[in-house]
Amino acid sequence: MLTQSNLLELFKNTRAQSELICSFLETEDYVVQPIVDVSPPKWHLGHTTWFFEEFVLKPHKDDYELFDIHSAYVFNSYYESVGEKVIRTDRGNLSRPTVAWVYKYRNYVSKALQEFIETEDLKSDVLEVIEIGCHHEKQHQELLYTDIKYILGNNPLFPKYNNQFVENPIQDFPQEWISVEKGNYEIGYNSADFCYDNELGRHTVYLGDYQISNKLVTNKEFIEFIEAGGYEDVLLWHAEAWDWINTNKITSPSYWHQIDGDWHQFTLQGLQKLVEDAPLSHISYYEAFAYAQWKGLRLPTEQEWEIANTKFDWGSRWEWTESAYSPYPSYTKAPGALGEYNGKFMVNQKVLRGGSVATSDNHTRATYRNFFHAPLRWQFTGIRLAK
Amino acid sequence: MLTQSNLLELFKNTRAQSELICSFLETEDYVVQPIVDVSPPKWHLGHTTWFFEEFVLKPHKDDYELFDIHSAYVFNSYYESVGEKVIRTDRGNLSRPTVAWVYKYRNYVSKALQEFIETEDLKSDVLEVIEIGCHHEKQHQELLYTDIKYILGNNPLFPKYNNQFVENPIQDFPQEWISVEKGNYEIGYNSADFCYDNELGRHTVYLGDYQISNKLVTNKEFIEFIEAGGYEDVLLWHAEAWDWINTNKITSPSYWHQIDGDWHQFTLQGLQKLVEDAPLSHISYYEAFAYAQWKGLRLPTEQEWEIANTKFDWGSRWEWTESAYSPYPSYTKAPGALGEYNGKFMVNQKVLRGGSVATSDNHTRATYRNFFHAPLRWQFTGIRLAK
Amino acid sequence: MLTQSNLLELFKNTRAQSELICSFLETEDYVVQPIVDVSPPKWHLGHTTWFFEEFVLKPHKDDYELFDIHSAYVFNSYYESVGEKVIRTDRGNLSRPTVAWVYKYRNYVSKALQEFIETEDLKSDVLEVIEIGCHHEKQHQELLYTDIKYILGNNPLFPKYNNQFVENPIQDFPQEWISVEKGNYEIGYNSADFCYDNELGRHTVYLGDYQISNKLVTNKEFIEFIEAGGYEDVLLWHAEAWDWINTNKITSPSYWHQIDGDWHQFTLQGLQKLVEDAPLSHISYYEAFAYAQWKGLRLPTEQEWEIANTKFDWGSRWEWTESAYSPYPSYTKAPGALGEYNGKFMVNQKVLRGGSVATSDNHTRATYRNFFHAPLRWQFTGIRLAK
Amino acid sequence: MLTQSNLLELFKNTRAQSELICSFLETEDYVVQPIVDVSPPKWHLGHTTWFFEEFVLKPHKDDYELFDIHSAYVFNSYYESVGEKVIRTDRGNLSRPTVAWVYKYRNYVSKALQEFIETEDLKSDVLEVIEIGCHHEKQHQELLYTDIKYILGNNPLFPKYNNQFVENPIQDFPQEWISVEKGNYEIGYNSADFCYDNELGRHTVYLGDYQISNKLVTNKEFIEFIEAGGYEDVLLWHAEAWDWINTNKITSPSYWHQIDGDWHQFTLQGLQKLVEDAPLSHISYYEAFAYAQWKGLRLPTEQEWEIANTKFDWGSRWEWTESAYSPYPSYTKAPGALGEYNGKFMVNQKVLRGGSVATSDNHTRATYRNFFHAPLRWQFTGIRLAK
Repeated sequence: MLTQSNLLELFKNTRAQSELICSFLETEDYVVQPIVDVSPPKWHLGHTTWFFEEFVLKPHKDDYELFDIHSAYVFNSYYESVGEKVIRTDRGNLSRPTVAWVYKYRNYVSKALQEFIETEDLKSDVLEVIEIGCHHEKQHQELLYTDIKYILGNNPLFPKYNNQFVENPIQDFPQEWISVEKGNYEIGYNSADFCYDNELGRHTVYLGDYQISNKLVTNKEFIEFIEAGGYEDVLLWHAEAWDWINTNKITSPSYWHQIDGDWHQFTLQGLQKLVEDAPLSHISYYEAFAYAQWKGLRLPTEQEWEIANTKFDWGSRWEWTESAYSPYPSYTKAPGALGEYNGKFMVNQKVLRGGSVATSDNHTRATYRNFFHAPLRWQFTGIRLAK
Repeated sequence: MLTQSNLLELFKNTRAQSELICSFLETEDYVVQPIVDVSPPKWHLGHTTWFFEEFVLKPHKDDYELFDIHSAYVFNSYYESVGEKVIRTDRGNLSRPTVAWVYKYRNYVSKALQEFIETEDLKSDVLEVIEIGCHHEKQHQELLYTDIKYILGNNPLFPKYNNQFVENPIQDFPQEWISVEKGNYEIGYNSADFCYDNELGRHTVYLGDYQISNKLVTNKEFIEFIEAGGYEDVLLWHAEAWDWINTNKITSPSYWHQIDGDWHQFTLQGLQKLVEDAPLSHISYYEAFAYAQWKGLRLPTEQEWEIANTKFDWGSRWEWTESAYSPYPSYTKAPGALGEYNGKFMVNQKVLRGGSVATSDNHTRATYRNFFHAPLRWQFTGIRLAK
Repeated sequence: MLTQSNLLELFKNTRAQSELICSFLETEDYVVQPIVDVSPPKWHLGHTTWFFEEFVLKPHKDDYELFDIHSAYVFNSYYESVGEKVIRTDRGNLSRPTVAWVYKYRNYVSKALQEFIETEDLKSDVLEVIEIGCHHEKQHQELLYTDIKYILGNNPLFPKYNNQFVENPIQDFPQEWISVEKGNYEIGYNSADFCYDNELGRHTVYLGDYQISNKLVTNKEFIEFIEAGGYEDVLLWHAEAWDWINTNKITSPSYWHQIDGDWHQFTLQGLQKLVEDAPLSHISYYEAFAYAQWKGLRLPTEQEWEIANTKFDWGSRWEWTESAYSPYPSYTKAPGALGEYNGKFMVNQKVLRGGSVATSDNHTRATYRNFFHAPLRWQFTGIRLAK
Repeated sequence: MLTQSNLLELFKNTRAQSELICSFLETEDYVVQPIVDVSPPKWHLGHTTWFFEEFVLKPHKDDYELFDIHSAYVFNSYYESVGEKVIRTDRGNLSRPTVAWVYKYRNYVSKALQEFIETEDLKSDVLEVIEIGCHHEKQHQELLYTDIKYILGNNPLFPKYNNQFVENPIQDFPQEWISVEKGNYEIGYNSADFCYDNELGRHTVYLGDYQISNKLVTNKEFIEFIEAGGYEDVLLWHAEAWDWINTNKITSPSYWHQIDGDWHQFTLQGLQKLVEDAPLSHISYYEAFAYAQWKGLRLPTEQEWEIANTKFDWGSRWEWTESAYSPYPSYTKAPGALGEYNGKFMVNQKVLRGGSVATSDNHTRATYRNFFHAPLRWQFTGIRLAK
């Protein structure tokens, strides 16, 4: 558990970081929602604020006055048990509240919460919710990057976000196979610091002998797959994946554009020539699986990944695993609305491990379980192979 | 045909008026597109500008330089023959170009076109296209009002547009039936001034004896229809209308809200108690027809409306007629892209006559043929009965 | 009004004819419903029977016992006011009642109704409903042909219906223009015999000078349109038509197949080489309109067609007109369920005139107003041009 | 591996059994496809026959002549690599080939294959494919029962299938918890007899201490869940499950009907009063999960189920497990079309264990891995709880 002053620091830094991310946007960029998975940046800013108001200030701070009675309605997301939510697909239809209003709302809540931490002696359950709120906002910071990328990268003008954001770190070392011996291993979080409920319940698993790559699949390697006709060979794909690539006419990773015969990629720094040695990004689980099939290899399970993680570098791409997102053996949902955080998504999603270039500093861990639906590609997702 | 100096006046006034309408908006309001029929205000501003650039400056002004090569792509609408258009449903996904950019684009084009009119001796075909461009922009001014109303009126915060716009003029006179005798009549535009191609080809029609109301149906009268169970009586409705009200759970006109037992209406001045004596607004053709059925009456045809129009006041509501939108006997499409203006919509739409509170001053005429699909309700549409 | 014995004759012939049409089917052919517009043949047989039971025997015949209490539920169609209907798209999901059951039901009702006509002295309103029932069944006989054609023609095995049905009569005479002078004309049914409510209310219309072709457009002529790129020229099409041909990848009339470079057509006699001089068939209103545009001509209005009809041969194709399906000036819906027959479809449909090779003998008239939605092609629809 | 004569026996029995199942149908019942998951019975009969023709006779029997060149097209299902398939949703549109034709096709292929087994000395790979073909047909026998139930049970006339089929065996013993101690266990098939590729690769798993019920959840227990408002409590449901029950208005298991206050169930013997002590059936994974949540318990994993299976009775219901359908550690797809059998479905499905009243005799095993999508309910699915 963090001390109250460390928590104050965490809170202030977290809030400032969200605003720094958005400082490169035009007002208009805050508003749109091109697909249901992407939320308008102003919604992220409001929603993370609403979380602190709803779960900390409203129940715990004496005489706290809501900034506005409508905010709960507009900025609730999936917390069905705390009132009517704005349907996700409707978020992009709302021109109001304005961006300026959202910043006022943020400041009002930030100030109230800072005062609350500074002046009161908070019980551990309150501290805990504040800490969750900070981690919740850090998750939304990653979504801010990926949603902004989607908004700009699906605009015919291809506007750049800024000149600094580095998407494509080079892996300048040779590919090698790391061997792990069969046996019983311990999985799951085991520290006193913060983690999510879905990582808890450290438990034993048995793993057979396996090998896992020290390196992520590169853009260059994926071009080979494309050129070998990977997208046209039905035997490489899951049945639903085959429907998906045909319905959506998928023939390359997201954000790739072939211009005059050369592959380009839209990045947060704008449209650029594809960096061949950079780790592949923005592919679905379906594509990750098909690529592994084509290589005669496979994706690791999340357990294999976790046990081997100290032996390779990770953190630039969310790595699709073969594991479906399921509860750990002793998982129990927290009661009430906070229990909706993770458990209700534990069906029909795949676990991703590792973190990405868009993940907040120090935000992921070796035990962190990210999860997305198999066809989604707007995150910085990549492939690590196993056998 | 207007003189060149009158045209300059018309052009300047028209351009200024669009900007005045938008002066009450927040930047965010310019961006969103809640339904496919509504366009983002910044799109209206850009599209009307693109029209002048594409059809006047580019082909006719020497050495004209495009403001930006991408504008054609982003601001073309339905003119399929002049290049790839942005799919209508995608307009609300585009945060760029920004509102500020659009105003720069407007100023650039307005200035170039003003100079062009001021300094050159223009041929009649160029004058004509400029005049069409002004009328085109006036049509978009009406759409600006109705689209802004939709954007604000479908926001849970119900923000007002301004304090001045009067939607609900009172008709303080008794209802009477105006009789017209059977016989041959002349229909269609017959003046030298501007009109659209769909009004042309003045021609004879035969009308039987009929009577038409001097007054529009009021909100109060429509409440009687609702309270008598009009929305639940299948025999009053067209088959497709019955599906429509059931699928969309339609039980009142658009923008009506029952709050604590009282009917309210969202207006451009915000949410207000319903003005009972004001003319009914925001109903579909289906509802207009069902109401007429319920009264044992009918809607007029567009010919009946046009012949009788001097005997009643009109202009506050677009009045649904029983007439389908079809070409007049001698109608011919203009060649090329401008020919797409009207003719290509002449199927499965209903003619509306009269104009509304949102229509630009002096913009409609007794011969003006507006048209919409039967279920649409976001325009200021109303009912005049006949028998 | 028919005499009671003539009515008996009409009834018996009508019932026998439906069964003759179906005598060429396999049991399985009676059951399926490939698209919503097509109904399973057994449904047609049951529905036409239900009509006589519901509107004649049940209300008018003493001590009549329903064959089965469920028949009303299963065989009602669009008569919303007489109870829950089976949703049209669900008809093809019902394996029961069986075909054998439907024939028993037919025999039971036919026998009861014959006895009723033979033994009782019927009032004119009852005679009238029986006559409507016969005409209703004749309409379904035409649908039987077109629905059977759809069922067989959309089966990859292309099974033939029989060897007798002639779809493609040759027009072996030269094309000529028939001129009609401008003036007032009388339109609508004016005889004591049976007609539908939508033909009634004979009334005056004014028509300008026009010319109408003595001949239908042939397959050969339509091939010229295809080869000239008619399906790719956006300027020939209504906006919604353009979307329709692109969404549905329409590049030729329905039932046309290009095999080894030669056009073939599925007919009720099976797949055959296209008869070039036969009148074109199975095209939508959209295609009829685009073809006329391409020729620099137009489709006639229904009034023009009716006035000129004695001067040309008709009856092999339903001829799309430019007229939208609207009520005649003095049209009033019959009260109750029978009032649902025609009036509720008077929006967003186009009038077709003339009759087709599938129309029952003596069933159409010069005043008969058929109507379909613009994109529909499964009827024997064709093109007559005007100017 | 079976001997050739045992295989002949298996083949003959299997073929006869499919025809016995269908002997209770009317011709019409063979044809329809009310939802995409259900196939027309004649398709099952044809498809299982096509399998033997395509994978045995065509490649392995000298001089074999196809019964008909079109059968491959019509009766292929998901084997994408062996040619164009009939889209699943189209199967119910095909009236031809007729049922009689399908039986002729069956007899032709059965006779040819019997002769082939009787007269030739077959290599093990051919024997293997024949054995797979028999098991494939047994799987389709189960689908025949469930698809027939769907076809009849979704017909408003509720026709019964026959008087013999027993769906609801009573579990007349008290509920008890079976305890299993933590430790390493072996999972997967380990015999020389037939099994599917997805059961192979016997491997070690570690399981913690757990308890599993000796008894399936009963209808009576599920009524308690309904009456306690289980379908209305959002906190019991996965997010996508909540959308699913609301979109589809799910308020009880499939085939349940409340008539005059009493729960009834459509069974293959027709509509009957619900047997309260029978095991619950026809629920989705979502409902199984929500029920377990409500009890404060959970579903077992497939490993837990397999290890404990000898300690309880099973076989009347397919039991939803918490396990997602994934490949076993050493799973490899067979090359070519047969490799499409299982592997391509290993994403976004849940494993079910145990078998049901519709499963062919001796067809399931303790290691058998069935799988369905979470919302599907037309199988005989039930719930066994764990903790």
